[in-house]
Amino acid sequence: MKVPRRRLYALGCRRPFSSTPPRRKIKHLLELPDRIHPSYHETKGNDLLSLRWPSPPRNILLVKKENTLATTEAVVDFAKHVHATYPSISFVLEPTAAYDLHTLLPFPLYTTPREATTTSNSVSLSSFLAQKVDLTATFGGDGTILHASSLFATTPSVPPILSFSMGTLGFLNEWKFPEHKRAFRELYMSGAPSSRHSILSPEQDASSPAVSQHAAHTIQSKEGWPPNLGASLGPTRAARVLLRNRLRVAITSPDREVITPPALHALNEVILHRGASPHLTHLTISISGRILTSTSADGLIISTPTGSTAYSLSAGGSIVHPLVKGIVITPICARSLSFRPLVLPAEAVVEVTVSGRGKQAVGVSIDGKDQEKGVGSGMGLRVWGEGVGRKGELGEKGEGWMGGVPCVMRGSGSGEGASGDEGWVGGLNGLLKFNYPFGEEG
Amino acid sequence: MKVPRRRLYALGCRRPFSSTPPRRKIKHLLELPDRIHPSYHETKGNDLLSLRWPSPPRNILLVKKENTLATTEAVVDFAKHVHATYPSISFVLEPTAAYDLHTLLPFPLYTTPREATTTSNSVSLSSFLAQKVDLTATFGGDGTILHASSLFATTPSVPPILSFSMGTLGFLNEWKFPEHKRAFRELYMSGAPSSRHSILSPEQDASSPAVSQHAAHTIQSKEGWPPNLGASLGPTRAARVLLRNRLRVAITSPDREVITPPALHALNEVILHRGASPHLTHLTISISGRILTSTSADGLIISTPTGSTAYSLSAGGSIVHPLVKGIVITPICARSLSFRPLVLPAEAVVEVTVSGRGKQAVGVSIDGKDQEKGVGSGMGLRVWGEGVGRKGELGEKGEGWMGGVPCVMRGSGSGEGASGDEGWVGGLNGLLKFNYPFGEEG
Amino acid sequence: MKVPRRRLYALGCRRPFSSTPPRRKIKHLLELPDRIHPSYHETKGNDLLSLRWPSPPRNILLVKKENTLATTEAVVDFAKHVHATYPSISFVLEPTAAYDLHTLLPFPLYTTPREATTTSNSVSLSSFLAQKVDLTATFGGDGTILHASSLFATTPSVPPILSFSMGTLGFLNEWKFPEHKRAFRELYMSGAPSSRHSILSPEQDASSPAVSQHAAHTIQSKEGWPPNLGASLGPTRAARVLLRNRLRVAITSPDREVITPPALHALNEVILHRGASPHLTHLTISISGRILTSTSADGLIISTPTGSTAYSLSAGGSIVHPLVKGIVITPICARSLSFRPLVLPAEAVVEVTVSGRGKQAVGVSIDGKDQEKGVGSGMGLRVWGEGVGRKGELGEKGEGWMGGVPCVMRGSGSGEGASGDEGWVGGLNGLLKFNYPFGEEG
Amino acid sequence: MKVPRRRLYALGCRRPFSSTPPRRKIKHLLELPDRIHPSYHETKGNDLLSLRWPSPPRNILLVKKENTLATTEAVVDFAKHVHATYPSISFVLEPTAAYDLHTLLPFPLYTTPREATTTSNSVSLSSFLAQKVDLTATFGGDGTILHASSLFATTPSVPPILSFSMGTLGFLNEWKFPEHKRAFRELYMSGAPSSRHSILSPEQDASSPAVSQHAAHTIQSKEGWPPNLGASLGPTRAARVLLRNRLRVAITSPDREVITPPALHALNEVILHRGASPHLTHLTISISGRILTSTSADGLIISTPTGSTAYSLSAGGSIVHPLVKGIVITPICARSLSFRPLVLPAEAVVEVTVSGRGKQAVGVSIDGKDQEKGVGSGMGLRVWGEGVGRKGELGEKGEGWMGGVPCVMRGSGSGEGASGDEGWVGGLNGLLKFNYPFGEEG
Repeated sequence: MKVPRRRLYALGCRRPFSSTPPRRKIKHLLELPDRIHPSYHETKGNDLLSLRWPSPPRNILLVKKENTLATTEAVVDFAKHVHATYPSISFVLEPTAAYDLHTLLPFPLYTTPREATTTSNSVSLSSFLAQKVDLTATFGGDGTILHASSLFATTPSVPPILSFSMGTLGFLNEWKFPEHKRAFRELYMSGAPSSRHSILSPEQDASSPAVSQHAAHTIQSKEGWPPNLGASLGPTRAARVLLRNRLRVAITSPDREVITPPALHALNEVILHRGASPHLTHLTISISGRILTSTSADGLIISTPTGSTAYSLSAGGSIVHPLVKGIVITPICARSLSFRPLVLPAEAVVEVTVSGRGKQAVGVSIDGKDQEKGVGSGMGLRVWGEGVGRKGELGEKGEGWMGGVPCVMRGSGSGEGASGDEGWVGGLNGLLKFNYPFGEEG
Repeated sequence: MKVPRRRLYALGCRRPFSSTPPRRKIKHLLELPDRIHPSYHETKGNDLLSLRWPSPPRNILLVKKENTLATTEAVVDFAKHVHATYPSISFVLEPTAAYDLHTLLPFPLYTTPREATTTSNSVSLSSFLAQKVDLTATFGGDGTILHASSLFATTPSVPPILSFSMGTLGFLNEWKFPEHKRAFRELYMSGAPSSRHSILSPEQDASSPAVSQHAAHTIQSKEGWPPNLGASLGPTRAARVLLRNRLRVAITSPDREVITPPALHALNEVILHRGASPHLTHLTISISGRILTSTSADGLIISTPTGSTAYSLSAGGSIVHPLVKGIVITPICARSLSFRPLVLPAEAVVEVTVSGRGKQAVGVSIDGKDQEKGVGSGMGLRVWGEGVGRKGELGEKGEGWMGGVPCVMRGSGSGEGASGDEGWVGGLNGLLKFNYPFGEEG
Repeated sequence: MKVPRRRLYALGCRRPFSSTPPRRKIKHLLELPDRIHPSYHETKGNDLLSLRWPSPPRNILLVKKENTLATTEAVVDFAKHVHATYPSISFVLEPTAAYDLHTLLPFPLYTTPREATTTSNSVSLSSFLAQKVDLTATFGGDGTILHASSLFATTPSVPPILSFSMGTLGFLNEWKFPEHKRAFRELYMSGAPSSRHSILSPEQDASSPAVSQHAAHTIQSKEGWPPNLGASLGPTRAARVLLRNRLRVAITSPDREVITPPALHALNEVILHRGASPHLTHLTISISGRILTSTSADGLIISTPTGSTAYSLSAGGSIVHPLVKGIVITPICARSLSFRPLVLPAEAVVEVTVSGRGKQAVGVSIDGKDQEKGVGSGMGLRVWGEGVGRKGELGEKGEGWMGGVPCVMRGSGSGEGASGDEGWVGGLNGLLKFNYPFGEEG
Repeated sequence: MKVPRRRLYALGCRRPFSSTPPRRKIKHLLELPDRIHPSYHETKGNDLLSLRWPSPPRNILLVKKENTLATTEAVVDFAKHVHATYPSISFVLEPTAAYDLHTLLPFPLYTTPREATTTSNSVSLSSFLAQKVDLTATFGGDGTILHASSLFATTPSVPPILSFSMGTLGFLNEWKFPEHKRAFRELYMSGAPSSRHSILSPEQDASSPAVSQHAAHTIQSKEGWPPNLGASLGPTRAARVLLRNRLRVAITSPDREVITPPALHALNEVILHRGASPHLTHLTISISGRILTSTSADGLIISTPTGSTAYSLSAGGSIVHPLVKGIVITPICARSLSFRPLVLPAEAVVEVTVSGRGKQAVGVSIDGKDQEKGVGSGMGLRVWGEGVGRKGELGEKGEGWMGGVPCVMRGSGSGEGASGDEGWVGGLNGLLKFNYPFGEEG
């Protein structure tokens, strides 16, 4: 569905997108209340963190894979369910998705003007989202999670991501879509005081519209949580979160000035590559100020542990567990027999300088998106891990952990919490066909 | 030089090794005062820790490579220098080395009875050393450091290791032997209150016997440090330490009971291997209770980041920086096209179980030493990282860091402190010929 | 079943194994007529050779996998079928197999005395087999084919091998056992003049004992082939043979003298390995007299293309098609980042010398069998490809091809001939899980 | 130096390039006599072939690296020497090189009109060269040899290439430029009847202009060779040639029609690659009509053994000796853990089809040159080895070998002939730093 041109202008000048009540479907997300930041806490016997909301989340960003009917239907189903059960929640979408979906939903959607999506304004889109979004739900696969993460690429504090896969499961441990009611309730209630837990059974919750309408009335109790939700979670149940650490990335000029937006992050990897150029890239790699090596290659991959199972793997890199704090360096077809992939500490500062031999700029790709301009001779890339850890260790006040992309991990559903290994081990075997055994021989 | 049989018996019954004064050269190390534990602290702008002695170290373990004249001479030179300059220091050696060297030195050496070195008693040798040794100095190469570390394989708290290379430098960033006076003074004075720093110039210290004798008289001041040493270090100078994390290793019986000594550690790696058996090993690998994969292979290497540049590298593993907290899993000639090496978090518990198909026990090697008995069908190996980090994080009281093997890193000598990358980058290029470039083509 | 001791003595002195007619079941294979050599010819549009017997084969060696009931039954079924249909054929077995099977079969078996199987006599066993065996049928898997081939390890001219797999197919393109009647008829009739082809339908042939008995009477016609067999093959049909080239292997003394039996061959590979020794092997590799490199490694694999999918693959070697004439060099865990596997021409002479540093002999394994003595310092291995090709090119008289292990390849059964790629491509995908694709991501 | 525009037009209309005698420097190569084909013969104890001219070569193509002063000087020196010593020889150059050099040389150069170098005419340039060039001399490195070879990419019968390196040696065993007099004489005289060998010493030949002028007079004796040259070669000495086999390449339409020029060859490799496209290539690989596998990857390399040390090596392929008759298949960053590189027989027909998922054409590069148009969905690449071998085996009449690019190998200069391994082993160690040993550890 296309939006009339007039509405776009309206968006552009930040007035309500339409003045006639029956069509008040698209609103500017600046109208929403400000973001609520959850905190993340260690729990015994689990390598994942538990999420704690100070008050119930209100603004959900919905991100979906493009151009597939199934995901559109899933988003509509999900939004209708959440709207009915948690009526105080508002829905944020990217501009194109908002225009695509608003006629399918009987309540307003929030977005930014379309102009904000052009490259020059993408920073402001990101800054709006960073101000308003309490949590993100993605509908698609690993690529969709990567895209959702990239919307917060310039934000140190990323809202938690709840991801649903359509069909086959990806590597990042998505929830299956049919689990969406349980998954969302678990995340919504995470950290709610246990006295608020009602005796409502999960079956009622899921199926009865009467219950949902009741919920709509009782919501906004003192602590903020509806008293009749989340009973099945029990007092100690919480959403389990893996803080996936990201890379901080800066492109530098020949005199070492940073020429990219500050606080640019990558969840998977940064790639330097020759693209269609017939010439190899000539790169010099330093670690924390010491020259490590110079290489002639098709390119170089600097990846997070999360990204170690993506392109780095194809280029020969090791598989690194996402809870390892490290930076993975993998060359792409280096002209050398002896460039073994490296894993550096997350604290290391990796600098890659393009040497003068190539006349053509070397391409830069961050989380799969090619940057407009490449890196010319003398320019470079500076990459280091963002701080992920206890606030105290990182020089911040407060309790709990900070940093990274908080991914809500899928639990087994059988009463025990999720674990950081569950999805990872499953992905290794199910997706990567890791150590697929030889057939039998007589 | 051989020791008369009578003396061995004397050692065996733990009496003074000889009763005639002129020959009181070898003493039991239990006669020494108890060990002094240094603490390790973060410093700004450096990824290494600074070492702080509460009072001057007194008992030094000297470990040397076997059977080389050059290292014997180096140990003698070193001991004479230290004895003259820091007369309150005593020297501990392994029994064989003590018997080899005591006639060459005009002061007593401390050791354990020779019997303690047999396999059945090696635990008690280790426990004696753990009680008494303040710091270890090694003379040899990486293999000697590995051996020194193995003497503390059952000790959670390892004394700091100051290592000197003879000839070519190893990978672990040894000091060159000609630097031994500066290196030792730096370590000895590390953490001493700055008011104790005298105005003695470093040239005097190194060359003049008069100064050394003077030092002998003034030692044992109130804080313990001689006032006339260490002036050249300046108030903020300290020995820089890399805590190399080790693996905790346990061999388990088919019913999962641990049948090895508690708190067994490996600095480089644990290897399961088929040895001379014509049959492949059949191993099942679990991570924190979840089965990862089963493999048929020549063997399996579970290594620390420090060990990633040793055997794991030959088997195809990535190079992992020693400051990364991780466990490296590398198969040896797996019968699979798709067993890519793995890096797991140091917190993971890796269990490897030997499957029933092989009748012969699978060999186990820890830091290059084959264990007497292998691992039979149903038995297994349990491996996890020792805790290295801030005491608070690890549930201990006190300030500073703990865990690992504290290796005193070689500084550049030009006034700035050492860095964790210096030796590592040097080793990659100088020793491993990392990314050795292709020759030029016209 | 055990054989009475008395009979063994009888075998030892080379008299008939038993003098009483009803038990004349085991005979010495020297009683058999001499071997018939087939020739191998190129055919248009096929990369395999067609086999041509000058007269029908008479002596079949049956080789079976040890200790499995299924293969024993298969051998009995096969032998009974062949005896009934082609009554002039005699059956040769290895001594142990002959004693195991002779009570299950109503006709004599031929073998050598058991003593001939001891290591010192294995050469004479091989020479007897080389004199008498027209073709070999194997029952088992790739390991059984390897064993059958090793019985002719000192023979330049190996009889053709028809291999049947029990259960899962191996890599070497075995026939399925239920195909044994068609497979054997195709091989038996291969090259028979077309005028001898009768109109007998294949159904009759397979099922009717009457036909078989008839065949028994009419056999030994002028050209040698029974006129009533093989009709279904058609005039141009022939068994398709892949001549798998082998390596010639010699162990040399420090003064370069060959100290192994002349004409020793390997079908898969020769391996130098450190076995249980804690020390690496130090090897110098020359190619046709030029030093290529010196290496410190766990060992070295020198393999044929056929062996490239065995141990060499686990050690990181490329997959080489069996029709490539080459020698594959793959190190086992070399202490180097830059020992990329090599493929040399079959004409190259590869010499590997053990350097003096290791005190312990380096183990040598040929086609999976460890040699009694290893290779000490200064000794070495000389390896080169056996000549496989047209007789004219190899300096021999006559037409057709020679050399290698003639493996009868499984055809598709649908009228078209087999191809050298069929089994290979199937093995890559079915057994090695070559390029197993990643799972889908959303 | 630039050529006046007028001359270009003259070339365009194929008249003599200039009508005034003093400037008759550039002529059309069609004025030259037709090409003389040498034959190639096996010799005992050498894996290289010996070259035999039926009569002395007359037309030399000189190919030089672009834009380097040193190579221009080398070409001038070489041409002057050859012109003086072998005055009946004419020099052919590529158009641009001819215009650059003709003012520097006091004798005519032969070339084609410049227009012939545009893509549409490059086939005709190649066909002119194939008609006239007796031998090619290259001045540069491996890249220059590759370029020279590509000038004959559509010619089954390539003239021999004598290559000189400027400075560092390349992998293809070039001669050092200071050896050019000996190298050329050896090639020129190769196969000359021994009775023609004069008693002229090599010292005279190289240094004395008088001798050269004498040679100019005596040339064109009955057999064609000057009687006073080549004495130092001895009766059995000949240029040693390695026939480097090439790949035959055809791009096919979705209905399997070949849409490229017939008989297109690659000396190093054919590459399918995604270029600057963000999408992976999806390729299906068949071998001689059987589907081997389908892969998603950055690209695919199909290389000759000669090319195995070029890009294929960077992508992880094995090193294959140029005398192995094979086709090397190496994926570029395949999304699979199990796509091990392959070596197929030279007789195999490899077909790669681009699958429908990618909308963008996949790039094709032959010997480093990107083809104008890529390969769209459904289209494909057909690659097979050109026949290299004895003429009889390849169905041709005559003696000797045929096929491939005849490369004149550098001899050791000490009286013994060159060998196929000499340059290869040297290149492995000197250029690729093959198996570069680890540094020593104490």
